[in-house]
Formats: sequence, C-alpha cells, structure tokens
Amino acid sequence: WIGYRTYIELISDLLDGKEVVAAGMREEVYRAKTALSLAAEGKRVAVVSDGDPQVFGMAPLVLEMASRLDLPLETRVVPGVTAALAAGALLGAPLGSDFVVLNLSPLLTPREAILKRAELAAAGDFVSALYNPIDKGLLRDVLSVFRRFRGGGAPVGIVKDAYRGGQRVEIATLEAVDVEGVDMRTILIVGNSETYRWRNFLITPRGYHRKYAYP
Amino acid sequence: WIGYRTYIELISDLLDGKEVVAAGMREEVYRAKTALSLAAEGKRVAVVSDGDPQVFGMAPLVLEMASRLDLPLETRVVPGVTAALAAGALLGAPLGSDFVVLNLSPLLTPREAILKRAELAAAGDFVSALYNPIDKGLLRDVLSVFRRFRGGGAPVGIVKDAYRGGQRVEIATLEAVDVEGVDMRTILIVGNSETYRWRNFLITPRGYHRKYAYP
Repeated sequence: WIGYRTYIELISDLLDGKEVVAAGMREEVYRAKTALSLAAEGKRVAVVSDGDPQVFGMAPLVLEMASRLDLPLETRVVPGVTAALAAGALLGAPLGSDFVVLNLSPLLTPREAILKRAELAAAGDFVSALYNPIDKGLLRDVLSVFRRFRGGGAPVGIVKDAYRGGQRVEIATLEAVDVEGVDMRTILIVGNSETYRWRNFLITPRGYHRKYAYP
Repeated sequence: WIGYRTYIELISDLLDGKEVVAAGMREEVYRAKTALSLAAEGKRVAVVSDGDPQVFGMAPLVLEMASRLDLPLETRVVPGVTAALAAGALLGAPLGSDFVVLNLSPLLTPREAILKRAELAAAGDFVSALYNPIDKGLLRDVLSVFRRFRGGGAPVGIVKDAYRGGQRVEIATLEAVDVEGVDMRTILIVGNSETYRWRNFLITPRGYHRKYAYP
C-alpha cells in the first residue's frame, strides 16, 4: 500500500501485516515510482488516493509512468466518489446539469490557463466545482470571473472535509465567500444561472419545468 | 423504494417486504411526485438512481419539487460513482485533468445549447464526458466540433454498461467512432490535447512532466 500519509492513516484498519509506504505532499512522483518498481518485482501494490483516483489523484501519474517505461503490468483503477459528488450530495443537488471540474492549484497548470477555463465554464453556464483552492489570489480572481457572468448574489456551496471529521457545509454568495477560511480540503461549487438556494440546499433544476407542468 | 424499472431490478435483493414503485422512462416527474407524497404521509422513501443521483439523475428533480411545495422533509442525497468515473476507470485514467460532463440528450436542453457547450469544452481543452447520446445526428455534430479542435485522430473512449452485464470498453478515434453502435447506456470520453492511448488505456497526464524529470 502506497499513499499520501493522511490517506494511509484513514485506512489504517486495512493495513495489518502489509508493507506500507507513506509519503508526504508533493511526493507524488516518488510514490508512483515506488509503486511501479515494487510491482515490477512481482508484488501486488495498491496506490491509495482519496475521492476518485483519476480526479487530481494518483491514477494518471502511475499510468503515465508505466506507459513511458512500457511496463506490461496488470493494472486496475477502482473508481470512487470524487469530491464534487460528495460535496454536491451534502449541498443537495447542485450538480443537476452539465458541469465542469476545475483544479485551482497553480502548481502544475499556468494561472492563465486556469483563468481561461473559468471564463469558458462561466460563459457556458456550466455548474463549476472548484478543487484545490490553495492560492487565495487566484481563487479571488476566479470568483470574480464568475461574478461577472452570474452577479455577486449568486449562491456558492462551500464544503470542507466532506464525510470526514470536521465536515463543514456552507452556502454563501459569490461576493461573500470567506476566501481566508478556504483551504486545500475545501471544494467550492458555483451553480449555473438557474441554481437556487432552498433552506440548506443548493438545487440546479434539470429542466423538466420547461417541459412538464408541476407544482 | 421508487425507481426506474431497470434500476429496481438491479437491486431486487434489497427489496424483500418493501413497498416498491417501479416506473418507466420519461416518468421522472411521476416518480418524484409519488416519492414526495409518500414521504408527506410519513413514510421513509428511497428514490433509486444509478451512478450518482445528482448527475442527470433524480435528486435535482425531487428537491426542486420539494422546494416548490416548500415541504420540510428530512432529505439526504447519497453520493455515488457517476458514469464518467466508472467509464474513466475502465479506460485507465482519461479524467486526469480538468473535465466537463455534458448531457447530449436534447429532451430537456435545446440542441444549440448543447453544441455551444461542446464548443466551449473543446476550446478550453477540457476532457469531456458525453452522456446520453440518444440523438445520432446531434452526436455526429458534437464529435465534429471536437474534431475541429483536436483533429480526427484524437482518441475517444467508448464504454457501454460499465460494471454491468454486457460491459464493452473500446478506444476509437474521433473520426472513427461507430455512431450507430452507440446507445443510451454508452458514455464517450474525449480527451484533451495531451490525452494519449497506451495499450488498452487512455491516459491524460496531470502535468507533472512539466515540473519533474522522470523516465
């Protein structure tokens, strides 16, 4: 079992008698390399991600490295619940229409590319789930892109530590997001132009009201 | 338990001794209404969706109706693995970067809106998961939008009945998608400009190669 230290701790009850490699943040390349070399020795290796391993997780990197070495390993990716879906369920149903998943970390993507994608997401009226808001300045810029399209009063869901200890679920407006209170383990969901707040829920209609009459 | 007939059959082992309402396709409004009126009678009701209930599933409609009636019901949405994640895992790791989930059904969304969103997704170099390709003409048009941006040789993952009986996983190119062979239960994943095929996998690098040296 190979994983980021925090995730390894989350599954400690599964690890009895198993060889464990826990590594810190930003050691993704080391984790992937170690996984592949242990697998090449014939070991069965599990690389642990949280949420879904594809979505800003370890699966793409492990497979990318395996492909560069053309290692014919038997590999299986196990799908999971990515943070947008976990946060969305806690908020009700904001992901009811077409949506975008956008990584706000400028570590691997240029800021301009992130801002351009935010602009296209807002222009396309996509619901937008914002991951990894580690750069406060960039988060502010992205929120103001959405404000231009949706207005400052549009609702935003803010979920920290979904389904974990310390879980926090809030609904704010685009102009009132507490950027200082947002951290790495926070997901923000900006609705589309039809998304509305009802009680503690954020709801994006699927469009049935355009076709059917109902109360 | 209330659900689309096919999904009710999938969970038949859970239904012993329970009241079941199974309904056909396009009876979503009836299903949501029935769920709410049973719940208003004080019953505990489960509305069954496949994948994730938010993503083109029943949760938005049920909550939208509850909100219109302002019914103070205790409601919980249970997150799941949406088809993009299931299909992505079977393909390897195409969803390794920012992505878009796009519904190709013109039943509730105008065709022009779907084509415009496809264009923005392609322009933003988003990986794009295409749901509900029931309209062959529209699917052809959407694929040609992506072809304009990515070229005809770009790989596309095509997954039918992910993790179910009859599962089929294929990788084609944008110009060679067998549109006639695609049905309602098929998901297509179009990569971004960096997505590539290796063996039976579709991989979208996360960008580490721009920052780290590795084989």
